[in-house]
Amino acid sequence: MKQITKCIIKNSLKRIFLYRGCLVRLRLMGVEKVFSYTLANETGVTSEQVRKDFSEFGIKGNKRGGYEINDLLERMEEIFHHNKDHNMVLIGMGNLGLALSKYNKFVQRNMNIVATFDIDPFKQKERSGIPVYSMSRLKEIIDRFKVKIAILAVPEISAQEVTDELIRHGIRGIVNFAPVLLKVPSDVVINNVNLCDELESVIYYVHKQIKADGLKNLEQLYRGMKY
Amino acid sequence: MKQITKCIIKNSLKRIFLYRGCLVRLRLMGVEKVFSYTLANETGVTSEQVRKDFSEFGIKGNKRGGYEINDLLERMEEIFHHNKDHNMVLIGMGNLGLALSKYNKFVQRNMNIVATFDIDPFKQKERSGIPVYSMSRLKEIIDRFKVKIAILAVPEISAQEVTDELIRHGIRGIVNFAPVLLKVPSDVVINNVNLCDELESVIYYVHKQIKADGLKNLEQLYRGMKY
Repeated sequence: MKQITKCIIKNSLKRIFLYRGCLVRLRLMGVEKVFSYTLANETGVTSEQVRKDFSEFGIKGNKRGGYEINDLLERMEEIFHHNKDHNMVLIGMGNLGLALSKYNKFVQRNMNIVATFDIDPFKQKERSGIPVYSMSRLKEIIDRFKVKIAILAVPEISAQEVTDELIRHGIRGIVNFAPVLLKVPSDVVINNVNLCDELESVIYYVHKQIKADGLKNLEQLYRGMKY
Repeated sequence: MKQITKCIIKNSLKRIFLYRGCLVRLRLMGVEKVFSYTLANETGVTSEQVRKDFSEFGIKGNKRGGYEINDLLERMEEIFHHNKDHNMVLIGMGNLGLALSKYNKFVQRNMNIVATFDIDPFKQKERSGIPVYSMSRLKEIIDRFKVKIAILAVPEISAQEVTDELIRHGIRGIVNFAPVLLKVPSDVVINNVNLCDELESVIYYVHKQIKADGLKNLEQLYRGMKY
């Protein structure tokens, strides 16, 4: 049974990642304790929101005199499995795939791209320290490295076919950079990262802001004429 | 006055982009009219949600016998300024910047990267059909092409400094790929795209799912023992 993917990443989870970024920065600065309002202030939400998000993900801490930063970060590591290695495969070694395969932040967070794949024989060589295989070796590599997560950077037209193959071989979660809605079984997790949409949202909000500025100026002009 | 950036992209806007993707696909298939439940079904939400999102963004259409797909798409083009060209600059021509500068979907949606910038003199040549300039020419290019939007693909350490410079020269919206929270005036729009977070959210949900599967299996085993 297939069903269409939903936007699965909750905003609360995104905020948790923001808090973690702040905590790491604060710890680097030598700070040991933090109040929820500090995190709230740094991330642009309310203190209540911070506490609510913590509670949703089961992040507890001694609140009297502030949370212990180390405690919070340890708890987050447990929840997000940072202490474990996460093996991944990357499919599609075009420009974006190549850039992702070279992105060094993944390794810093224990996310290892163990192999990449491409149908183009010319790309089937090592391009970034990580081997590039033909798709025929997908099952073998997924089995050998017990891979559960895949990054999809293939053209739209082949995205669904590759997805079906990945799932058949045991992949349970996909970060999809192809601008297409994938149909997957309900127990497979899809996170769509649509670069065009990310840019367009900014265009939308900037235009809205510029329009609002324009109206404000007109209003001031009008008031100036009135008095 | 600076303030920290918030997650500004609303989920309703993300869904609008999903609907649009469906509409474009349906039109390609020769379909002329669509009911909200078709869009709902394709994107994994309810019909009420589709209608609510449409109303939030002022997307209207004759509902009797379904919405006219062409009408909906035209209205969306107006709202998202698709009929206009959007000039952008891209700062940072590392692996990710290079991939983004070559991403051909942007042009298809009238988003033009008119110039890219890098501090590295070795990168200051044409790398992808788009010129790569030194940062000293930023103001000149922004003024000449009336650029309001920037894509930021620089290392964390220089992200804030570059942001300040962009804003000083008139940039009003930034798509930020550097994993850092930028401090900007309240009338500047920031959209953070954090690739690590996108991967980690999938890891989190996959682990949760696998754990749930495990519990279900245990439960079945327990029931089997009981009877």
